[in-house]
Amino acid sequence: MTTPQAIQVSVLGWAPPIVHGLVRDLRVRWALEEAGWPYSEHVVNQAEQASAKYRELQPFGQVPAMQCDGLKLFESGAIVHYISERSPALMPDDPAARSQVTAWMFGALNSIEPPIMMLNVLDMIYQGPKGDEYNGLRAWVAGWVESRLDVLGGVLEGKEYVLGRFTAADVLLTTVLRILRDTDYVTKRSVLDAYQRRCEARPAFKKALKDHMASFEKHAPKT
Amino acid sequence: MTTPQAIQVSVLGWAPPIVHGLVRDLRVRWALEEAGWPYSEHVVNQAEQASAKYRELQPFGQVPAMQCDGLKLFESGAIVHYISERSPALMPDDPAARSQVTAWMFGALNSIEPPIMMLNVLDMIYQGPKGDEYNGLRAWVAGWVESRLDVLGGVLEGKEYVLGRFTAADVLLTTVLRILRDTDYVTKRSVLDAYQRRCEARPAFKKALKDHMASFEKHAPKT
Ligand SMILES: N[C@@H](CCC(=O)N[C@@H](CS)C(=O)NCC(=O)O)C(=O)O
Ligand SMILES: N[C@@H](CCC(=O)N[C@@H](CS)C(=O)NCC(=O)O)C(=O)O
Repeated sequence: MTTPQAIQVSVLGWAPPIVHGLVRDLRVRWALEEAGWPYSEHVVNQAEQASAKYRELQPFGQVPAMQCDGLKLFESGAIVHYISERSPALMPDDPAARSQVTAWMFGALNSIEPPIMMLNVLDMIYQGPKGDEYNGLRAWVAGWVESRLDVLGGVLEGKEYVLGRFTAADVLLTTVLRILRDTDYVTKRSVLDAYQRRCEARPAFKKALKDHMASFEKHAPKT
Repeated sequence: MTTPQAIQVSVLGWAPPIVHGLVRDLRVRWALEEAGWPYSEHVVNQAEQASAKYRELQPFGQVPAMQCDGLKLFESGAIVHYISERSPALMPDDPAARSQVTAWMFGALNSIEPPIMMLNVLDMIYQGPKGDEYNGLRAWVAGWVESRLDVLGGVLEGKEYVLGRFTAADVLLTTVLRILRDTDYVTKRSVLDAYQRRCEARPAFKKALKDHMASFEKHAPKT
């Protein structure tokens, strides 16, 4: 398989510092580094996000999107899946193992991320009053998050990566767990904490994070 | 491509009537009907859901899971993806079009379903007090759902299916929209309403829904 040429990944020109290191282009950058595919950044500002042209690439006006060889792709999960199907660094050859990678990719984004995002909305995004009712709801959602993390911790017991060797599933799982970085949900579970550190210690992750942060730095409005 | 043999899909033996027609094995049944692949039901009860054996198949102890030809697979998204990669009824041949199907599959499950599930938790699952704070939060989440549906409605304008012809993306989009069946979010948007009806009028959907409902009927505890 020849490496796709002229890959462009859309990234945000500006985002509040609280989400630096979380914005979902990080997942795509990481997968591209693991695969060893060079790419360039396509920096979008808010006006471009809203434009009809950009929405042809990403219907919700968000990042990331990817273009290469005339192909247009959106959704971090779909982009990472596309890369991994074409890169042995992210997906084994064996068909049964490949299906398991895809299962854990959907699992990360459809069974684990939704409760975590709901907690994130409650803690960071929603700015309304936070009294007894809010606390009751928050406790319910927190319990949902805990139960998902307990399962994932059990699966990872005694393993380096979710399917033994490193795969695209770990790219998504790790970046989903990162959303909890300002809480102790991950750190208090030693198996998950070690897993998170192991994945984030990979050279490809470090390079991706460095470039992701440098891009915000470079495009920050001058004050 | 030969049709996989001896396909088994795990389904719940019992679920509260309010979720009949929504439980996620419906997505897999529908995809299998479109593909024309025969399957049998593997009915799980709560004890089996909690068992170590079942959790090897579905780590979260949920449905659906699928087994065939020695392959084990979980996550409705991953299972529908697996079927669609092997069935021209659900995925076109052209590589660029295939990537768009995958993008919309992840879009359905990671951009549209999470806010809808959050609304669902607020309206149906969470049983705590629902006063001013709750209402403020609910309004915020409802706005998030509306904005996603506005985008989807715009994309569907003038089209029969999200990518023109019917694909696996429509299986996931339709079953995600169904979660809103007791509200007017879909029905008040004529494009979405027509899309939902068009998809649900397909013989494969009707057969899948009939079998899904019949299975609950058959396994209902006798009173
Ligand atoms: N499900 C989508 C989510 C994309 C998403 O939430 N993107 C955010 C950054 S992490 C974004 O572009 N936010 C800016 C905006 O919505 O204007 C994916 O995984 O690609
Ligand atoms: N992300 C999973 C969600 C699976 C899921 O939520 N399954 C529910 C039914 S729709 C279930 O098994 N509930 C019973 C339980 O959790 O005990 C998928 O799409 O497969």
